[in-house]
Amino acid sequence: MILTVTLNAALDVTYDVDRLVPHGSHRVGSVRSRAGGKGVNVARVLAALGHDVLATGLAGGPTGALVRAELAAAGLAEQLMEIAGDTRRTVTVVSEQDGDATVFNEPGPVVTPEEWQGFLTRYRKLVSTVDTVVLSGSMPPGVPVNGYHELIGIAASEGARTVLDTSGEPLLAALEARPDVVKPNAVELREVTGVVDTHDAAQRLRAAGAVTVVASMGPDGLLAATPSGTWRAAPASAVTGNPTGAGDACVAALSAGLAAGADWGQTLVEAVAVSAAAVAAPLAGEFDAAVRNRLLGTTRLWNHG
Amino acid sequence: MILTVTLNAALDVTYDVDRLVPHGSHRVGSVRSRAGGKGVNVARVLAALGHDVLATGLAGGPTGALVRAELAAAGLAEQLMEIAGDTRRTVTVVSEQDGDATVFNEPGPVVTPEEWQGFLTRYRKLVSTVDTVVLSGSMPPGVPVNGYHELIGIAASEGARTVLDTSGEPLLAALEARPDVVKPNAVELREVTGVVDTHDAAQRLRAAGAVTVVASMGPDGLLAATPSGTWRAAPASAVTGNPTGAGDACVAALSAGLAAGADWGQTLVEAVAVSAAAVAAPLAGEFDAAVRNRLLGTTRLWNHG
Repeated sequence: MILTVTLNAALDVTYDVDRLVPHGSHRVGSVRSRAGGKGVNVARVLAALGHDVLATGLAGGPTGALVRAELAAAGLAEQLMEIAGDTRRTVTVVSEQDGDATVFNEPGPVVTPEEWQGFLTRYRKLVSTVDTVVLSGSMPPGVPVNGYHELIGIAASEGARTVLDTSGEPLLAALEARPDVVKPNAVELREVTGVVDTHDAAQRLRAAGAVTVVASMGPDGLLAATPSGTWRAAPASAVTGNPTGAGDACVAALSAGLAAGADWGQTLVEAVAVSAAAVAAPLAGEFDAAVRNRLLGTTRLWNHG
Repeated sequence: MILTVTLNAALDVTYDVDRLVPHGSHRVGSVRSRAGGKGVNVARVLAALGHDVLATGLAGGPTGALVRAELAAAGLAEQLMEIAGDTRRTVTVVSEQDGDATVFNEPGPVVTPEEWQGFLTRYRKLVSTVDTVVLSGSMPPGVPVNGYHELIGIAASEGARTVLDTSGEPLLAALEARPDVVKPNAVELREVTGVVDTHDAAQRLRAAGAVTVVASMGPDGLLAATPSGTWRAAPASAVTGNPTGAGDACVAALSAGLAAGADWGQTLVEAVAVSAAAVAAPLAGEFDAAVRNRLLGTTRLWNHG
C-alpha cells in the first residue's frame, strides 16, 4: 500500500473561454472541477497503474467537501483530515483559440497548531499500515516549514520509505530527515542549491541528506543520483501536449518502483514512460496508456557515472 | 419597501496577483469574496441610502450558502429561494502592478421548470408587500427568456412599479409587459435596437412598451426618455475610478425616486451623483458618500426636448 500526502489539497477548476483578454470581461463557456493537489494526482496515477493507494492530507469547508465528493466519485480511497478552513481552489483558464492555459493558485486555508498536531497523530497511524509514503506539493499557511521533516521522521520510525516532491524552504528543511527519494525538477533544483549543473546540484542534495535525488528535466527525461551511481533516462522522442501533471506521474512511478523493490533502471524507464504519457493526456493525474506502453520499449537508459 | 430580484446571484471572488501574465502560473496573494449579482449590488446601495430593501432571487448549493452568509453578515435582508444547482462565481483578477481587473463570469446553475414555478409563487407573495420592484442582470440557464416579462406582469397585477436592468433577448422579450423604467447603457441600447443615436434608440424601446427609458452614457451621464419629455443629466466633471457597479448605483437611485414619487429632475440628479460616487468606490454596491453629496449640488440637468 502506498500513502500519498497532500497538505494543500485543492479543487482544480477549469474555465473555458474563447480567448483570454487581459483587463477584459469573459463569459465562461464551461466550468469543470475535480479534486487536485499534487498528492491527489499521484494517487490517481498509482490507482490507474493498478497499485493499492490511499490519499491523506488536509481538507475543510465547503470546498473540502467538494474535493471529497469528487474523490469518492472517482473511486479513490481517502483519509483526508477535516480542518476548519476552506480548502483552496485553483482556477485554470483555457483559451479555446490556442489551447493555452493561464493558472491562478489560491494560497490555501490557515492550519492551526492543534490541527497540525491532530494530523500528525492520524498520519502516524496510517503510516504504520503502508510501506511507502509520497509527500507532495506546497504547504498551506500555518504548517511549520519543517513539516515534511517531521512527516519523514515519523515514516522512518514506522519502517516506511518516503518520496518527497516539493521545492524551496520546505524541501531544504526536510533533507536532514533523509528522505529515500527527492524529485525536484531542474529549475527547483537550481533554485534550492544555487548550482546550475543538474548532476552537481543533485549531489548537493544527497550530501545534505537525500538518499536518492531524481531530477526531472522535461523532454530531456530524468537524472537519478543514487547510492549506487548516477543514471540518465530519456524518451526516444519528444511528446507534445500539456506538461501539467507530468511530474506527479513521475513521482507515482518512482514510488511504485520503491514499493516493489524494483531496480533503478526499471523504475526510471517506467517513470519516463508514464511522465511522457501524462503530457499526452489533457488532465493532471491522467496518462495515455498507449503512449506509456510504446515508450516502455523505446526509452533510453544509460549510466552517467 | 423596494424588492430587488437577482435571478443569477453570484459569489464575487477577487484575486490579487502581482501582474497578469497570459499563459503564466500565478500565486494569488489574497482571496476576497462577497455576495454579488446586479440586484444584490442595487440592494446594497439602497440600504446605504437609507431605504427599506429586500433582496430575492435564486441561490443554491455550497456557493449559494456562502452568498447568504455574506448577506447576513452585511445586514442585508434576503428571501433568496433555494435551488438544487450551485450558485455561480465570478472571479476578478486584480493586477497589483496597474490596478487593472480581468473578469471571468461563470454561466450559473441550470434552473428547473419546477424551481422557476416555485419562484413565481414566492415572488407573487413578496411583490404584494412592496411598492417597487427592481429586476437586474442576466438570467441563469433554464429560466424562460420571457422570464422578466412574467415578473413585470405579476408586479403590475399587484400594483407594484418595476425597474428593469438587463440586455439582449431578455430585455426585448420584457418590453411588452410595460416596465415603468428600463435602464440600458448606451452600448446595450444600440445592440438591442440597432440604432446608433441614443435618443432615437430610447424612443424605440418606449414604442415597444417601456414607459420610461433611462440610458446611461458613462461619464456623459444619463438620457431619460419619459412620457413628459426627454431629459439629460451629467456630472460637472468626470470622476476617475472603477466603473463596475456604477449602473447598479444608478438603478438604485432610479428605483428610490420611483418609490418616493419624486419628479424626474430630482431623480436623475440623484442617479448621476450616486453613479459617479460608485465609480469613486472600489467595490460594486458601494459609493463614496462625500462625492455623492458634492455632485448633488453641481450636476447639470437640462431638457432634451
